[in-house]
Order: sequence, then structure tokens, then C-alpha cells
Amino acid sequence: QYSTGVRKVTLIPGHGIGPEITVAVQKIFEAAKVPIEWEEVDVTAVRGPDGKFGIPQKAIDSVNANKIGLKGPLMTPVGKGYRSLNLALRKEFDLYANVRPCKSLEGIKTLYDNVDVVTIRENTEGEYSGIEHEIVDGVVQSIKLITEEASTRVAEFAFQFARENKRKKVTAVHKANIMRMSDGLFLRCCRELATKYPDIKFEERYLDTVCLNMVQDPSKFDVLVMPNLYGDIMSDMCSGLVGGLGLTPSGNIGKNGALFESVHGTAPAIAGQDKANPTALLLSSVMMLRHMNMRDHADRIEAACFHVLREGKVLTQDLGGKSTCTDFTKEIIKNLK
Amino acid sequence: QYSTGVRKVTLIPGHGIGPEITVAVQKIFEAAKVPIEWEEVDVTAVRGPDGKFGIPQKAIDSVNANKIGLKGPLMTPVGKGYRSLNLALRKEFDLYANVRPCKSLEGIKTLYDNVDVVTIRENTEGEYSGIEHEIVDGVVQSIKLITEEASTRVAEFAFQFARENKRKKVTAVHKANIMRMSDGLFLRCCRELATKYPDIKFEERYLDTVCLNMVQDPSKFDVLVMPNLYGDIMSDMCSGLVGGLGLTPSGNIGKNGALFESVHGTAPAIAGQDKANPTALLLSSVMMLRHMNMRDHADRIEAACFHVLREGKVLTQDLGGKSTCTDFTKEIIKNLK
Ligand SMILES: CC(C)[C@H](C(=O)O)[C@@H](O)C(=O)O
Ligand SMILES: CC(C)[C@H](C(=O)O)[C@@H](O)C(=O)O
Repeated sequence: QYSTGVRKVTLIPGHGIGPEITVAVQKIFEAAKVPIEWEEVDVTAVRGPDGKFGIPQKAIDSVNANKIGLKGPLMTPVGKGYRSLNLALRKEFDLYANVRPCKSLEGIKTLYDNVDVVTIRENTEGEYSGIEHEIVDGVVQSIKLITEEASTRVAEFAFQFARENKRKKVTAVHKANIMRMSDGLFLRCCRELATKYPDIKFEERYLDTVCLNMVQDPSKFDVLVMPNLYGDIMSDMCSGLVGGLGLTPSGNIGKNGALFESVHGTAPAIAGQDKANPTALLLSSVMMLRHMNMRDHADRIEAACFHVLREGKVLTQDLGGKSTCTDFTKEIIKNLK
Repeated sequence: QYSTGVRKVTLIPGHGIGPEITVAVQKIFEAAKVPIEWEEVDVTAVRGPDGKFGIPQKAIDSVNANKIGLKGPLMTPVGKGYRSLNLALRKEFDLYANVRPCKSLEGIKTLYDNVDVVTIRENTEGEYSGIEHEIVDGVVQSIKLITEEASTRVAEFAFQFARENKRKKVTAVHKANIMRMSDGLFLRCCRELATKYPDIKFEERYLDTVCLNMVQDPSKFDVLVMPNLYGDIMSDMCSGLVGGLGLTPSGNIGKNGALFESVHGTAPAIAGQDKANPTALLLSSVMMLRHMNMRDHADRIEAACFHVLREGKVLTQDLGGKSTCTDFTKEIIKNLK
């Protein structure tokens, strides 16, 4: 899928703290001698010929050419005609599977120390269809769209992911007791795929039950696959269990490309002050390297990052430390084996 | 609203462990000399003239007459034509607000000790509209229905609840960044109501963010109001934080009636063995007594229950104890002040 030698990767620094944490990742990649070349593009909403705001063409072309990208947080301007650029990117490149691993990190004290789950979120439809109507005054309907095609491909992705990553179990999360037809279809697709992966345990659970069990004993879960909105909720909740969005990575994967991103916001309050924590973006870039089959580089960078977190001497303020983003970055570089 | 003297309350023991925990509540009420008379009715699915399964007419008549009821867990048979009887009851009596308090209990060890939140869940529409279609083969849509009327009444309920219970803050939980029109309408109704309750702080938060913040620091939240499915998830999650569905009560409130219920299942594995924990149903009955303005009886029963949990000497097996439901019940009666 990828040519050998130096590969080009689209880089979308984003807004707020985005540029700072992006520079951090770039420095670490340079120090680790990762053989990639960044192609930096700006993604700020531009008004298209139809009057609506969207992604600049240059960014689209770059991702289409490179088929792989890393992105920082994007600000979505408030107002009519704007739609989340994050969503626009997922849609534009048909990035149908959103992968969000959450694992307890040594050195990061939370109430939990046994979290190791991966949320696989359907990323193109469901409650995010964008189809809404006001039927009569004061009566609105939003359409949740579930298709066999999208459900099957994300279910297949989940089982394939589980197998490749030596995971034991896939849990399909649903409310088919309520949304019998839509979640029912999603669930049937998961069941169907499960029969093709006899090496992976399969279970199905109600969303509410999973939320309850997750906060009581996260070790009950492994890989979870679910419709779009459920994945949005579940991945944030799991992120909370291990320390929050500043620490957890995310990858949006499609047939013709993949975009890895930090899920946290632009943090305007601390932007430009060298205070941001680049961990989420860095671990997203590690996911990206694994996806590109550069596993050694991924392992080295991840190990250095985990080491610095575990040591706890050089931490950014969100982790209770006093160090700058620059110092944290240098410390990771120092610890590259 | 209620006549003085002995009041009639509809009692739906339900299935599985339902009858045992119901008897426990009845015994405690008797010992506490609560001036009510139970009218016991069976709610097992019956086939109506249209061939569909539903609630027996006797049960409907009883709730309509008494306007107040207590119910144990109901089993919903699996198969075509069946719909959850729990939902059917909410619908039948237009019980539009579902109130689910979750408070850390002394003696019940969980990872959290600072939970004190109340989920107010819109109980009649949203993702539970039941409207679904298969558009073409393999393409299903489910309709989420949000109306100004239902949103306004549940928002008003939340603010009124906050004021009456001396709560400080109401948080509207939504995904109006995605479902701009439907959740947008819900949110606007909440904002509108907020202006009429200047004594209550109001904030709005994304559902995913609330899930993340809740597992990190539940003390950030107080009263939460949200559309149907979000409330289903949130209340289970919060219940998990304080020990699970065996311990948390629930009330379904409408204009013309109210039904209090335990949210846990029928637990067929231990049914009939005198092992069940009646706490959730008992605390639901305490909510019911407060709703009926029998605050002294409510306080006494609640205090006795909390005392037994705190002492930890006589506990059912789900709480790590060895006592029977009968002994746990006796212990509560012994501690009625
Ligand atoms: C920013 C927002 C549109 C987005 C979502 O709802 O998917 C975010 O919460 C996420 O999880 O990536
Ligand atoms: C039993 C089920 C239909 C119900 C729901 O989804 O509302 C339950 O989870 C609840 O929270 O009362």
C-alpha cells in the first residue's frame, strides 16, 4: 500500500494549541529519524462556490495524494453554514472506522489502573447523518441512518483489528431493544462477522449496561464496536478513566486513507504559551506509524513517551507538572532508545 | 392532589425477584405504619384484540384510579409483537419525567465517594419514538423526535425539582453540535426555562464531555436534564459510580400519575431463593412517599435503610454479605426510629 523510502504525510497543525503540539511531534520524529516527509496544510474553513464553508481544496488534494495524515485540533466557527471540519474531513475521505484505544498509563494516577479497551466507532452515518427536519412548528425529527454496508465494514474492521492486535474479544454495543430495526441491523451485521472470526470471542451488550459495567470494572471489556454516537460517548468516557483527552489517541481509517488526530480541543486559554501537552497527538502519530507498518519507530517513540510519563519528573501543567511543552518534548527525545 | 387518610397505591410486584423485594417493601411499610393500602396488580403481557401484546386492563385501571404506583422488574418476552412493558407503562400514563438520583452511600465501597447527582430524563420521545423504516434493503432509519412541548415540560420539571430540593445547578446535556435541530430545540427550551429560575444556576454541556467529566469528578454535577436515550445511558453510568442498579431508585412522573420502580432486571438466576437485595425498590418507594408528601415516613425508612447499609453487618450477597432478603428486611425494621 505504501511505497518504500521516505513517505509523505499530510500534516494539519490546526488551531489554538495545535501548532505547538504539532511542532513537538515533528521534533520527536526528527530525533527518532522517522523516514517521513511532512506536507503541511492549513485547514481553516473556506467559503465554497455554494456559499457554504468547507475544507480548503489544497488540504483535500494533499490527503488524497498521500493517503495518510496527522491533525491537531480544529476550531469550528460558530454560526449558520458552518459544520464541524472534523466531521467534514471524516466524510470527505470516507474514514469509516474510528479507532480509540484507552489504556491505563503508569505514572498517570486515576481511580482506575486496569483499563485497556479500544472503541471502534462507526464514523460515517448513524446519528451523524445530518438529516433533520422541522415537521411542524416545534416538532423536529433527526434521522439515524444505519446501513448494512457501513455496519458490515466497521464490524469487519473491528474483528480484523482484534485479530491483528491479538485481542481476545469484541463486544457489540447497541440499543436494539429500543431501536429494533436500526440497531438491530447493526447487531446482525456484527453477528454475521463474528461467525467468520471464531478465534475472537463475541458478545453483545446494551449501551447503558456497558456504561454501568465500564465504570465499575473496565477489565470486563476489550474491543468494543458500535454506531457513531455511542462511540463518541464511550470513547470520551473511557478516555476519562485513564486521564482524559490530553492523553488518548485516535485514528480515522478508510479504504483510501487514514487520518490520525488528537480529540481534545484547541484550548485557546493556554494557546501560544508553551504549556500544552502533546501526548494525545504524539500517541496518535504512534498509531499512524503502526498503520504505516513502521512498527519499530512507533515502539521507540511510544516507549520514550511512556517512560517520561512514568518518571513524572518533566510533566506539563495539565498533569500536575511545571514543565513547558518544549521541555517535555526534549525529555522524550532524551529518552529515545 | 391526594385525599387525606389511607391512600391506595397500585403495586406491581413484577417477575423474577420482583415479588420477594416487593414483600420486603410491604413489610417495612407495615412496620413503619405508613398509611397506605396496596392494590396489587399483575403486569404480564396479554394479547390485545389487535393481536399485539400489552399491559392488562386491570393494571391500567388501577394506576388510572390511584394515580400512583410502585413496580418491580418486568420481564419482556422475546419475539415479534412484544414491546418492553416498562416503556408501555411510561407511555400509557404519559410519565414524561424520569427522575434518577444517584448518591454515594456510606458503607457501600466504590471508587467514588462524592457522587450526588440527579438525572432527569425526558421519558416519552427522542430516540424512543419507536418510528423506524427500512428504506431499501439494508438501509434503515430510526427517527429521533424532539418536540417543544415535551422538552419544555421536562425542562420545567428539572428546574422545579432543583428548586424544591434545594439544588444549585441544572446542566442541560446535549449533542446540539451534531443534531443541531433536534437537540438544538431541546437546548433552546432549557435556556428558556432557565431564565425563569434565576435562583438556579444553568449550564449546557455536550453529552460526551459530561461522560468524561463524570467519571473524573462527579462533584462537578448536580441536576442533569436531557433527552430520553442520553438519560438512559447517564443514569446507568451514575448508578455504576455508587454501586449499581441494585441500590438506585427511579421515578416516572407525569401530570396524572407517577410510577416508581427499581431499574434492575428480574435476576432469574437468584429468583425465589430469598437472596435478592430490595434496596433499589425500597429507595424508589421512599421517593414515592416524598412525592405523596409523606416526608416523615420517607425520612424514617430511608434513614433505617442507610443505617443498615452503613453498619454493613446484615447485607445481601450482591453487597458482599451473607444475609437473606428476609433478614436484611428485618434489620431495617429493627432500625426504624
Ligand atoms: C468535535 C465533535 C464534532 C466530535 C464528535 O462529536 O464526533 C468529537 O466529540 C469527537 O469525538 O471527535
Ligand atoms: C428496559 C429498558 C427498555 C429501559 C430503557 O431503555 O429505558 C431501561 O434500560 C431503563 O433505563 O429503564
